[in-house]
Amino acid sequence: MSIDIQISNTAVSGISDASLFRLPQYHYFLTTLRDRGITKVSCSLIGQEMNCIPVQVRKDLQFTGVVGKPKTGYSVAELIHSIETFLGWNNTNQAFLAGAGNLGTALLGHERFTNLGLRIVAAFDSDPLKIGSSIHGKTVLPVECLAELAQRMSIQLGIITAPAEYAQSVADQMIRGGIRAIWNFAPLRLKLPPHIIIQNEDLYSSLSALSWKLARCFRTP
Amino acid sequence: MSIDIQISNTAVSGISDASLFRLPQYHYFLTTLRDRGITKVSCSLIGQEMNCIPVQVRKDLQFTGVVGKPKTGYSVAELIHSIETFLGWNNTNQAFLAGAGNLGTALLGHERFTNLGLRIVAAFDSDPLKIGSSIHGKTVLPVECLAELAQRMSIQLGIITAPAEYAQSVADQMIRGGIRAIWNFAPLRLKLPPHIIIQNEDLYSSLSALSWKLARCFRTP
Repeated sequence: MSIDIQISNTAVSGISDASLFRLPQYHYFLTTLRDRGITKVSCSLIGQEMNCIPVQVRKDLQFTGVVGKPKTGYSVAELIHSIETFLGWNNTNQAFLAGAGNLGTALLGHERFTNLGLRIVAAFDSDPLKIGSSIHGKTVLPVECLAELAQRMSIQLGIITAPAEYAQSVADQMIRGGIRAIWNFAPLRLKLPPHIIIQNEDLYSSLSALSWKLARCFRTP
Repeated sequence: MSIDIQISNTAVSGISDASLFRLPQYHYFLTTLRDRGITKVSCSLIGQEMNCIPVQVRKDLQFTGVVGKPKTGYSVAELIHSIETFLGWNNTNQAFLAGAGNLGTALLGHERFTNLGLRIVAAFDSDPLKIGSSIHGKTVLPVECLAELAQRMSIQLGIITAPAEYAQSVADQMIRGGIRAIWNFAPLRLKLPPHIIIQNEDLYSSLSALSWKLARCFRTP
């Protein structure tokens, strides 16, 4: 059952995190459809793929301002474009990364982030052995320079892959440098001024939740 | 105001994901207290640090079965131990990792995961250039061997760091090998039997949400 309808072309504010998280997943599914030569799609088909009710899919897509047609549904190409535009993948966010360990190195080398408009322009560390070295083409700079450089280059986005014990101090330097949004991979709650946007990526908590469920749902043979 | 009270020593089932995610964060804060020589803590102090109301903290800690004392609060050491036991950090989960790219390499080298009971025992890839190489002391094996080896070694946990286009096929092989819980870093919803435990770590969605908020909350200078 296709329940796509004409909707307003105006993107609505007040989108939930859950919806924001689903849009890139819709986008991925849509690109697989496009690659298979499929040009039209309904909310029910997307919902089926995503384990979502069609009403939820329609609500999410509404935020991007895209217009579905009754019976024929959405144009796949138009939907892909609308999601990319809405999520700002066509703009570039220059970012600083602090903590050039294993995870930092992985993020520096993750080429697909550029598809989402992320360009990590510099990496910072406090380890004298790392400073001056090059990781995926980016020179590692001393963390003391972060704030000044961020200000000079008008950097808005900071990524923290430093160990937990340095994370707060790194965040403080980022904020002093005018950074407005932080993607934090350190397993602690940072103390931040209310205007700073924070996205926590707590791998320890995820792993703990997973192990806990595994231990309780199954007995080890 | 300390509102710690005597509670049952029986861990309660039905814990929410949000609580499961907070416990490792409490744990981190508690270890910093321990390192500073502090032996007693109240729910209000933890709440203050975590931006949580004390009632929420007490509810979360209840799940671990720990007993707080009226007025004096909790013993820091006991609380640390209770959280570790509850989350199963004292047990070891052997895991297979599929996708030996940048992110897979980072996870293979992340020594602190062992504190949480995770031991990644083998890495798999389909790239002939990677197969046979050693990453952080683990030899990369051909992904075709994953299912059989998982079965033989009774592996319960699988980590997917393969690109999205291979993720479903890797998940299918994991399940064929008897793996029961999957930590998925690929940006798509995997189709899994209902008994499989899944934890999605969608960096693309996180980054998109962050960029979206940054674009809307601030004007770029």
